[in-house]
Amino acid sequence: MPDTSTPNTPAQPTHWLARQFNLPLPVLQAPMAGVQDHELALAVARAGGLGAIPAAMLSPAALGAELAAFRAASTAPLNVNFFCHTPPVPNATVQARWLAALQPCFQAWGVDPSTIDNGPGRLPFAVDTADLLAAYRPEVVSFHFGLPAPHLLAKVRAWGAKVIASATTVDEALWLQDHGADAIIAQGLEAGGHRGHFLDHDLSRQAGLFALLPQVARAVSLPVIAAGGICTPQAVTAAQALGAQAVQVGTAYLLSPEATTRPVHRAALKSESSCHTTLTRLMTGRPARAMWNQLMHDMGPMADVAPAFPLATAALAPLRAAAEAQGRSDFSPLWAGQGAPQCQALPAHDITCQLAAGWV
Amino acid sequence: MPDTSTPNTPAQPTHWLARQFNLPLPVLQAPMAGVQDHELALAVARAGGLGAIPAAMLSPAALGAELAAFRAASTAPLNVNFFCHTPPVPNATVQARWLAALQPCFQAWGVDPSTIDNGPGRLPFAVDTADLLAAYRPEVVSFHFGLPAPHLLAKVRAWGAKVIASATTVDEALWLQDHGADAIIAQGLEAGGHRGHFLDHDLSRQAGLFALLPQVARAVSLPVIAAGGICTPQAVTAAQALGAQAVQVGTAYLLSPEATTRPVHRAALKSESSCHTTLTRLMTGRPARAMWNQLMHDMGPMADVAPAFPLATAALAPLRAAAEAQGRSDFSPLWAGQGAPQCQALPAHDITCQLAAGWV
Repeated sequence: MPDTSTPNTPAQPTHWLARQFNLPLPVLQAPMAGVQDHELALAVARAGGLGAIPAAMLSPAALGAELAAFRAASTAPLNVNFFCHTPPVPNATVQARWLAALQPCFQAWGVDPSTIDNGPGRLPFAVDTADLLAAYRPEVVSFHFGLPAPHLLAKVRAWGAKVIASATTVDEALWLQDHGADAIIAQGLEAGGHRGHFLDHDLSRQAGLFALLPQVARAVSLPVIAAGGICTPQAVTAAQALGAQAVQVGTAYLLSPEATTRPVHRAALKSESSCHTTLTRLMTGRPARAMWNQLMHDMGPMADVAPAFPLATAALAPLRAAAEAQGRSDFSPLWAGQGAPQCQALPAHDITCQLAAGWV
Repeated sequence: MPDTSTPNTPAQPTHWLARQFNLPLPVLQAPMAGVQDHELALAVARAGGLGAIPAAMLSPAALGAELAAFRAASTAPLNVNFFCHTPPVPNATVQARWLAALQPCFQAWGVDPSTIDNGPGRLPFAVDTADLLAAYRPEVVSFHFGLPAPHLLAKVRAWGAKVIASATTVDEALWLQDHGADAIIAQGLEAGGHRGHFLDHDLSRQAGLFALLPQVARAVSLPVIAAGGICTPQAVTAAQALGAQAVQVGTAYLLSPEATTRPVHRAALKSESSCHTTLTRLMTGRPARAMWNQLMHDMGPMADVAPAFPLATAALAPLRAAAEAQGRSDFSPLWAGQGAPQCQALPAHDITCQLAAGWV
């Protein structure tokens, strides 16, 4: 009798990615805008997990190029991720206050604030993006900050994509279930990058994964994907015990060669800085977990002088470029979760397989 | 050949309590000042876990009575818990500001602030307590907020007690290891009651258990006990996967009949209130996780108008008594961890056995 088992092909589809896509490994690579492109997604896909392309900071042309590059290189399923916030109406007073607060920085770094491109920054999911996506039919479309309007979700569903989205509370998980998600990402407070909360902006509602995951898993009938602080196979085992049907991992990939993590960001991850992340709204206008940079020290990480998401970003861009050119991270968003000290500088393929070994 | 295995006697001492005390279950009942006495400790001990008596709010006479009651009823090992903060020098200006802020409450509830007993509130571990303990030789002496001075620790060691203490960061875990702890409690941000931090009071350093536990377990050579958000057998399995050699559980016992949890506190735990805990320094002067009460809503949970720990408590006591007499929790410290919605109104014996079933 032939032995049909191989290390990457479990006999039973115990996890969501196996059941949905026949993927061997229960690992979703977290989409991380600004620190990765299709190369990381491909590396994870080749290992047997689900790769992701973060679209929030890409123009339609750039997104199309990313999708084409992935599809040209692999037949594996793909997750494309979008923010679905409501862009704020720019407020001249708020903007002037922000620029005034940054004035000493502009002077110190020789930046002319009149050159700042006050573009929209991160764009929410919209009709043109949905139409662009349709040409590539990604198997998973994921959202942060809730879900887009029903007519947009219908476009995604038209080609059979599975819809997943982040919940940071039980209430958000139930809302996502009621509004058409196919699976729910339970995002623990440990997670790096933007918090996904969208129903209530009181940060005291944000819970650690040990508390959030089992409560979400009990509350919803959908599969639950665990995210936040998962950097080791032991954490994958723990997430599975608490009811996860897959894990989503971001921070663990930041030192992989396939990520586009900038040098100052990599240096911080390899230093003592990795031991101390915090939530900051300075970098974009919305709370996100990052390692400390000089601006956070100077202004306080949650200072309300920063304009609403995503308008805080534009004025920081030239400062960031000037500082990074000198090897400094004073204005860089050093996104990282609380598991950052566990990051390893390994190929994404190896990281994916290591993590999956914890699924029992 | 006789079958020597029984459900409560694992064949191998896989956990710290088995190795140290031959206890069958890997569950430490968290000492919870104000909501329990020796009855809860006895119930957990009878189930096969380690019961605890919280001493921080007890006079020497009351502590002696608790210890005597436990010893009279059981030969099981016992954990006695102390705070080891440095009491602050009362500041008349700060105290006057606190009383002024509470003045509308005093008026509304008919409390005469001149009757407030400005006693020391929670007392740190001291020579007289150590001498009192010596008569009862508790097998475990545990500390919150660091460790007492070496001469005090030496007194405890004189009768062979094991010393355990809470760490909320890797740095604190290493400090405790260097200063004489026998095991370390990794207290995740999910935990109810007082945060145990003592090296750095920056709350942004506090991590969820998913991130904290494996990093502490990797950093120290001592056994690590997981605490925070552990309310189910699945969470015990998860903690074990992340490197715990036992778990410490508090919130899960709050609805047990053996706890002395007050009616307003029980009512809150059974309500929607249980879904939203936050850190507050209003109740005692030091950050602790609790469900929201009216005072937290009115002043903000972290308002700096409250004097330093433990001096905030005294002025609240008569307000709390007046409100609770009317079935209201406006001033009550409704301690609870983020796992609070998972609380069950079951005997502590059953809760202990249920939790232990998750140890694999």
